[in-house]
Amino acid sequence: MGFNESVIEGRNAVIEAYRSGKCIDKIFILDGCQDGPILTIKREAKKAGSLVKFVDKVRLDQMSETGKHQGVIAYSAAYDYAEVSDILQAARDKNEDPFIVLLDNIEDPHNLGAIIRTAHQAGAHGIIIPKNRAVGLTATVARTSAGALNYIPVAKVTNLNKAIEDLKKEGLWFVCADMDGEVMYDLNLKGAIGVVIGSEGDGISRLVKENCDYVASIPMKGQVDSLNASVAAGILCYEIVRQRLGK
Amino acid sequence: MGFNESVIEGRNAVIEAYRSGKCIDKIFILDGCQDGPILTIKREAKKAGSLVKFVDKVRLDQMSETGKHQGVIAYSAAYDYAEVSDILQAARDKNEDPFIVLLDNIEDPHNLGAIIRTAHQAGAHGIIIPKNRAVGLTATVARTSAGALNYIPVAKVTNLNKAIEDLKKEGLWFVCADMDGEVMYDLNLKGAIGVVIGSEGDGISRLVKENCDYVASIPMKGQVDSLNASVAAGILCYEIVRQRLGK
Repeated sequence: MGFNESVIEGRNAVIEAYRSGKCIDKIFILDGCQDGPILTIKREAKKAGSLVKFVDKVRLDQMSETGKHQGVIAYSAAYDYAEVSDILQAARDKNEDPFIVLLDNIEDPHNLGAIIRTAHQAGAHGIIIPKNRAVGLTATVARTSAGALNYIPVAKVTNLNKAIEDLKKEGLWFVCADMDGEVMYDLNLKGAIGVVIGSEGDGISRLVKENCDYVASIPMKGQVDSLNASVAAGILCYEIVRQRLGK
Repeated sequence: MGFNESVIEGRNAVIEAYRSGKCIDKIFILDGCQDGPILTIKREAKKAGSLVKFVDKVRLDQMSETGKHQGVIAYSAAYDYAEVSDILQAARDKNEDPFIVLLDNIEDPHNLGAIIRTAHQAGAHGIIIPKNRAVGLTATVARTSAGALNYIPVAKVTNLNKAIEDLKKEGLWFVCADMDGEVMYDLNLKGAIGVVIGSEGDGISRLVKENCDYVASIPMKGQVDSLNASVAAGILCYEIVRQRLGK
């Protein structure tokens, strides 16, 4: 768990890293270099939002670990994911009923960061995100989480429905938020619980919804569609906090 | 209430509009134009995040209302603010106790938009923002509010404390969110109420806090500072919704 920084040196290695979707935070390029591969790297760096610094050869040589930087050194931050079992263990360590937040395809890194922050503050023991779709844990997510990503374990699973099935065997109940559910204040959300938050555009996916024990709705009086995903997650998580506190 | 589009033509008028902080969404510039004032306008447009389009003279001439565009036409969207009395009237029209959200210096337009959306969905009758500091109602705010800005009145006041004093005379109670307050579930938040949300960095200002009848705290178990401003606003507004529903 937490971020591990890794260093990538050399033109092809850096281009490859960008193309494979690695999250590169910072990149150092030899000042004045203008050839094809370097231009490609600059373009990719701009697209990815990496911080680009132009430095002289002496500096690059000093930074290089391999001695073969070819005019470019990149720093990528990779998050070390936790396992679902780590999350259950975190709950056991605190002698609390498990409280887990599952994200069904959140795409906006700011929303993801805000949800991680909220889940941590609400006392959730961990977060589960699906492997393939959805946004990964980038530097933007870490920043928006205001540091919470360092404290709450995040696990990546291949199949969210499978993870829900497995956790049901551990005694968890599952609730998701959707407009057509029962008003959340009327549901019993105490005990071991998993909260599923849907994506910004499409909400919760059908299969996941069918897999949930409860569908909770947040009462809305306005004329627009739903709430921002991180706000909705906050409201639902804090309804759980309220019920857990016995208020 | 709502957005009014206005057209600004001519180099000095457009530069002046940018310098006075007007929110310019879109700007059309004569293609190929590279002189000093146009470069200044391009720089300001980039800073302000306006959408820039380069068009030919025939198109600009067609668009021009004055015939004196000098190679540049800008579109600015100005929001028509409501009055505090309009907000109170909206509550009376619905035969409900007033529920108003006051923003003490929110600076992030995404947070402002999300709070406007949440306040509307929670059934608040209006929003009050201070005139001088804080972010105005820009196109970004309108977009992030998911259209809610078209439904909920927003009033701008010179002095937030004065507005609170005036509203107290109308029978409103005021609550703000801060870490050292009483747990919000234990407060009586029914009846005519104003909710004050502090800024992202500094929280609620001292004078405003002293002016509030209650300080509510959102219970937090995590190791990071507070919550995102729009998430905190959502949680507090929905605690009011819960109490108003008698749940």
